[in-house]
Amino acid sequence: MHTITLKLVTIVTERILEDRLTRTLDELGAKGYTLTQATGKGSRGVRASEWEGPDTRIETLVSPEVADRLVAHIAERYFEHYAVIVYVQDADVVRGDKYV
Amino acid sequence: MHTITLKLVTIVTERILEDRLTRTLDELGAKGYTLTQATGKGSRGVRASEWEGPDTRIETLVSPEVADRLVAHIAERYFEHYAVIVYVQDADVVRGDKYV
Amino acid sequence: MHTITLKLVTIVTERILEDRLTRTLDELGAKGYTLTQATGKGSRGVRASEWEGPDTRIETLVSPEVADRLVAHIAERYFEHYAVIVYVQDADVVRGDKYV
Repeated sequence: MHTITLKLVTIVTERILEDRLTRTLDELGAKGYTLTQATGKGSRGVRASEWEGPDTRIETLVSPEVADRLVAHIAERYFEHYAVIVYVQDADVVRGDKYV
Repeated sequence: MHTITLKLVTIVTERILEDRLTRTLDELGAKGYTLTQATGKGSRGVRASEWEGPDTRIETLVSPEVADRLVAHIAERYFEHYAVIVYVQDADVVRGDKYV
Repeated sequence: MHTITLKLVTIVTERILEDRLTRTLDELGAKGYTLTQATGKGSRGVRASEWEGPDTRIETLVSPEVADRLVAHIAERYFEHYAVIVYVQDADVVRGDKYV
């Protein structure tokens, strides 16, 4: 089966950022994304003490280049003022050429 | 701790396929699966323009052989007519021998 | 972008264990976690035949040492009496030094 290795970027953050972040994904070259509802808790961001309640989890499969751009953009714009987790993993994507 | 490395296969697709796909997982040798509700958006499938609204996210831990069968089956049967994302990752599974 | 490679530990289990497990995460050194609702099905635990209905999915980003402690603790305390899946993956975490 034809797969290609892409980057799965997962962002867990405050619901209020959902629209801005999905627009950002689009602008930086992601072809799509999946949203799930989540509840986060813990000292995982700058506003750790407030990190409770409904969150959003955004996942996107992108090229390594787009992953780098996303990570840099989110770190620069959001880390100081919002609770946000971002991590990157490899994923072997079926017909992954559609995503790049 | 005893772990074995298995394949985590993630399928994100239209809700309408959930029953068919979970039966397929069973038939092809998966020992179980986890379902989560998701919302997908973007040009990630053949029917990209219609890829909106509630989706289902199916995850299953399987042997590499079962992962290959699943991926081939889903690509052959569903990629042409449905919006479907499939990706495969490694996962170190505690007491993973139960899953193969 | 500054990332460090951590362990993403995913636990899928019965809802009834959610509070106990999140306290355990805290006690064993996890800095936070994300909860999502899930539905599990299949022969993936000791009480395989009862593994149906609402589950909880707990994810936490931790150091390799904390991951080992978590996995050992959960296997020892919960595998015999509850349906529980635990798997560990690598994740490149942005500003991951906050998590260890």
